[in-house]
Amino acid sequence: MKLRFGIDLGGTSAKVAAIDSRWRIVREKTVSTSGFPTAEPIAERLAEAVKSLNNGKSPSRVGVGVAGDIDFDRGTIRVSPNLGWAKVPLKRLLEKRLRSKVIVDNDANTAAWGVYKTQMPSSVTNLIVITLGTGVGGGLIINGLLHRGATGSAGELGHMVLDPSGRHCNCGQRGCLETFAGGTHITAEARERLQAGEESSLQTVFDHDPESISPKTIAEAAAKGDELALSLWDRAGRMLGRAIGDLVYVLNPQQVVLSGGVSQAQSLILKPLRETLLQRPFKTPVMSVKISVAKDPAQIGVIGAALL
Amino acid sequence: MKLRFGIDLGGTSAKVAAIDSRWRIVREKTVSTSGFPTAEPIAERLAEAVKSLNNGKSPSRVGVGVAGDIDFDRGTIRVSPNLGWAKVPLKRLLEKRLRSKVIVDNDANTAAWGVYKTQMPSSVTNLIVITLGTGVGGGLIINGLLHRGATGSAGELGHMVLDPSGRHCNCGQRGCLETFAGGTHITAEARERLQAGEESSLQTVFDHDPESISPKTIAEAAAKGDELALSLWDRAGRMLGRAIGDLVYVLNPQQVVLSGGVSQAQSLILKPLRETLLQRPFKTPVMSVKISVAKDPAQIGVIGAALL
Repeated sequence: MKLRFGIDLGGTSAKVAAIDSRWRIVREKTVSTSGFPTAEPIAERLAEAVKSLNNGKSPSRVGVGVAGDIDFDRGTIRVSPNLGWAKVPLKRLLEKRLRSKVIVDNDANTAAWGVYKTQMPSSVTNLIVITLGTGVGGGLIINGLLHRGATGSAGELGHMVLDPSGRHCNCGQRGCLETFAGGTHITAEARERLQAGEESSLQTVFDHDPESISPKTIAEAAAKGDELALSLWDRAGRMLGRAIGDLVYVLNPQQVVLSGGVSQAQSLILKPLRETLLQRPFKTPVMSVKISVAKDPAQIGVIGAALL
Repeated sequence: MKLRFGIDLGGTSAKVAAIDSRWRIVREKTVSTSGFPTAEPIAERLAEAVKSLNNGKSPSRVGVGVAGDIDFDRGTIRVSPNLGWAKVPLKRLLEKRLRSKVIVDNDANTAAWGVYKTQMPSSVTNLIVITLGTGVGGGLIINGLLHRGATGSAGELGHMVLDPSGRHCNCGQRGCLETFAGGTHITAEARERLQAGEESSLQTVFDHDPESISPKTIAEAAAKGDELALSLWDRAGRMLGRAIGDLVYVLNPQQVVLSGGVSQAQSLILKPLRETLLQRPFKTPVMSVKISVAKDPAQIGVIGAALL
């Protein structure tokens, strides 16, 4: 059986997986990536994990998805805040340890590629995938190809500016899409509003342990009708709808797919998202675009990496 | 000499041109398009003009650029506010009158194609062209191809929403890029501020004839240091810089080219545009993109149409 190998490399752990010809994960390993001062020992552990999934041998190809600014041609991580890396030649580090061709790409690109290759009908060749996790990223499929752009930086739609006087974003701007729809910001805003005493079913939980407030607990509270929680997801949906409206006007995709850890909140987000999008006056592109949620968001990145 | 034929069809007139193998206009005609109740007589006049530029014969191919929402595959104008057209099968109307293959596209797409084919080095294959005229439009070249999108609607970047509580746009939204950088809106805002008595060298001109206030007179006043005029171009430049920042993050193009009737104001617009763009924190895509102004903006649309 011909297997393909992918790595989804994050700040605390990496998922390493082998997928079969039907694009199902058949073997996988999780490798811890925190607590290492340099990239070399992480590359070493990733290489070992890949070989262990392939009966101790180097496979011919390995695809890697990494959160950060990636120089795709060189396979270098220009900067990855999550990993604390700058100028790490990951492709070279892995190829030194594996006799494999290694391809390194941004993790939103690998997620987009995974969605495109395994979850879309063949008629869909123009597609935007939005990854909603702690941050907000994106990957563009244009004419059936991953659009990486001039420097491999394309798809940074989480930092489109929606409100120049809005919340400070980690990136240095204010009012990025990510400040409305990223898990870290939604959580921070919930804690601030609870701290200020706003009425909510989350108050007791918050008073007991502020750290227990998370996108998951906020989604659960919203599902039970909590106004504060509902307002946060509603706003996330509306701001996503506004950004997607701009993207639909510019790129006119066939489909927009939401992926990432948002799945628990999808029903809360999709309604305000669609309502906002449908307010756009140019009906041709707006009525033709399909909005959906990716299946298996936790696996789609490593599957896309393996299929690079 | 092998000639190619293009038509740039606008609300008051159409430019019909023959270009040579060096992409220079060698013959041209202007056809009035206003005052006709239906599209048929306009198609008739356009067909006659094309033949008259080709010694009375139908050429093998004709490209047409039209302002509006175009169904590229069918060659139908879904709607063109400038021409007052809806559901006009222009390709069919012209092919009935010419024994030519007719290709109909959005005029911002033909301008983008003209810029790409005649003004870019061959290394540039990812490019955004922004047409600044009475309105604001755009055309995307991705991997050397015009990106038309799922329904031929791609490139509507003039209606990206920058300020949801901003000026009303003709499209029905508020605060579109076009409300800051489109000639009609810049002129309207100048007249409103002059009407309100704001100090400006344009006041005497305005009092004598409000209609004499135009993007051209506003640019002339700005060139002489008039504060009101300067503030309008400065804001147009900053808002273009903000929209281009979003586009650079999403598409990571090699080049962004401004085209259209803005050329008289380019020096006023480019500085605030570049300053705004360079404030973006992700330096890789921002520092690599080149911003420039198209040459021959009045001819590039018809040249691009001929080269479709």
